[in-house]
Amino acid sequence: MKAATTTTTVTPGERYAFVDLTDDLRRAIKDSGVTDGAAIAYCAHTTCGLVINEWEDGAMNDFRARIASLVPEDIYYAHDDLELRTQNLAESHERANGHSHVKAMLLSATSHAIPVAAGEPLLGRWQRLLLIELDEPKDRDVIFHVFGA
Amino acid sequence: MKAATTTTTVTPGERYAFVDLTDDLRRAIKDSGVTDGAAIAYCAHTTCGLVINEWEDGAMNDFRARIASLVPEDIYYAHDDLELRTQNLAESHERANGHSHVKAMLLSATSHAIPVAAGEPLLGRWQRLLLIELDEPKDRDVIFHVFGA
Amino acid sequence: MKAATTTTTVTPGERYAFVDLTDDLRRAIKDSGVTDGAAIAYCAHTTCGLVINEWEDGAMNDFRARIASLVPEDIYYAHDDLELRTQNLAESHERANGHSHVKAMLLSATSHAIPVAAGEPLLGRWQRLLLIELDEPKDRDVIFHVFGA
Repeated sequence: MKAATTTTTVTPGERYAFVDLTDDLRRAIKDSGVTDGAAIAYCAHTTCGLVINEWEDGAMNDFRARIASLVPEDIYYAHDDLELRTQNLAESHERANGHSHVKAMLLSATSHAIPVAAGEPLLGRWQRLLLIELDEPKDRDVIFHVFGA
Repeated sequence: MKAATTTTTVTPGERYAFVDLTDDLRRAIKDSGVTDGAAIAYCAHTTCGLVINEWEDGAMNDFRARIASLVPEDIYYAHDDLELRTQNLAESHERANGHSHVKAMLLSATSHAIPVAAGEPLLGRWQRLLLIELDEPKDRDVIFHVFGA
Repeated sequence: MKAATTTTTVTPGERYAFVDLTDDLRRAIKDSGVTDGAAIAYCAHTTCGLVINEWEDGAMNDFRARIASLVPEDIYYAHDDLELRTQNLAESHERANGHSHVKAMLLSATSHAIPVAAGEPLLGRWQRLLLIELDEPKDRDVIFHVFGA
């Protein structure tokens, strides 16, 4: 039984950017020495998420358009109402990111568990592990925990 | 290699209530004796879910408003059409909760996998493990499975 | 410590079909010899997903209607715009399935982690492991990784 936990930090280039973490996942598996087991990918944030899908500009643009339509930026968010709000008023919260929290909760894409065999994640042909930034871009930590034999 | 499975039962106070389970998660990890590994949080129900996000009243209200808008309560649900329905007609189904099932499927937030290090879950600064009730409140079982060294 | 990885291939009968994989999950657990631990269910595709919910025709129809309304088929998808597109133009992509990718990303239901005790998955009373086809039906691989004692 082997196990290893590593953190990858990425900085998305802009709001709604996708960042491809598939190579980071593969490296975490290689470095762990695990050949057969599973890998957990965990996003340590509340305004971005991890999705497993295709890296194709059109599909990513389609998703951006749809999530922006389902959770618009230009409606009222109580999270951004500083006359009302009393909790967690920290330095990192000056920006209006209520819509980002709602998008992240709707996706509910904080963690994934991916089987590993022969030292490789068992991703399907078109699958890539992607971080999607739902807020203003900043440093984002993704934690990999790999375990098995 | 250690592993432990425990169940926490909570009773949300009302429909759409959030219940903070972060302390329960921490306790399950402590009680397991695992210092380095991972924890699975599993919601054993079809009309509630687990999300990892911030405990801030505004953000939680924003989410409630949005999910209620995306999956309205006041439209037709075949699940609630007792003239049509033939399956799973059990005592627990007298209430009209078709909208709750659709919300739960849309979130698809039944399980999370969270890395553990030094006896603590590797939650980000603002992350809390939250159960969201999408139906009339009732007892809800959340199962923690913690494994590692 | 035991662990086993197996793949189940299913062919949904039609678009938006649900396929019940609960018996496949139970069999994968039995065959692994694991009595106490957890099972990962992993969908190796970008245009279908795994949800854990009730097998009831009404609820499944309600979900189909809602996801079709939230992510319509008859709007523009850049993924399907062959005048624009340059990436991943492979044989399997002749069909217009941009909406399927967006639905799959919105659900973000690629993997689940389910605790196992006494050789059984700890599913709640109404919970079934379901694959939902979001594209034209084709062979779909679902990978189970079971681990524990």
